[in-house]
Amino acid sequence: MSAHSYINMTQPKSRSVDRYIEQDKARQAQQDLVSGRIAVRLAQTFQALSDPTRVRIISALSHTELCVADIAALLDMTQSAVSHQLRTLREWKLIKHRKVGRIVYYTLDDEHIHDLFHRGLDHVMHG
Amino acid sequence: MSAHSYINMTQPKSRSVDRYIEQDKARQAQQDLVSGRIAVRLAQTFQALSDPTRVRIISALSHTELCVADIAALLDMTQSAVSHQLRTLREWKLIKHRKVGRIVYYTLDDEHIHDLFHRGLDHVMHG
Repeated sequence: MSAHSYINMTQPKSRSVDRYIEQDKARQAQQDLVSGRIAVRLAQTFQALSDPTRVRIISALSHTELCVADIAALLDMTQSAVSHQLRTLREWKLIKHRKVGRIVYYTLDDEHIHDLFHRGLDHVMHG
Repeated sequence: MSAHSYINMTQPKSRSVDRYIEQDKARQAQQDLVSGRIAVRLAQTFQALSDPTRVRIISALSHTELCVADIAALLDMTQSAVSHQLRTLREWKLIKHRKVGRIVYYTLDDEHIHDLFHRGLDHVMHG
């Protein structure tokens, strides 16, 4: 099975179909494979969601905007600790904010984040 | 603004609505807030996707099954390195496998993983 790996060793970047064991499946996978650059950005997005506190903040924001004080009260955390996580979520473009006077409200950045969170929840709840 | 945090300090677990600045928004967020236990499992799922190589494997598997050798050829990686990542993805239940003779084929664990990956891709491409 490993012999095939050597066939095109001299042309590792050719991506010619004959370097694969199963041509049709490999052809489909080649079409779906994301580039290294896109993979890095995707991994960063998922990294931003790989913390339980940040997950809980995203869940709380899934159907409403909230100010820092209310997020802190909801999670029984200090406003300082919540602000730190909100900064991370903002840097990775998972949430955005708007100011009304001195109050800053946070919402999910776009509907993709809402969907992303809920697909993850579906997997955990029913997977 | 911070005064409200002290109002219910003696009953930190009451979650009574009067500890919030904006009652309606807080009530909605309370409904959506996931538990700490669910948040940990969600964070683990996202953690499994927070690596560019694992993201590329998931993308390759998004519409087809593949054997280790073909995944390795597709990603220009050794089978040993690919197997290591596949093990991680299996442990976190993002992929599953089936054996046909000596060949092991991998697919996404369920349609939620397909959706999860594509919602992340939507965010990165159009966010």
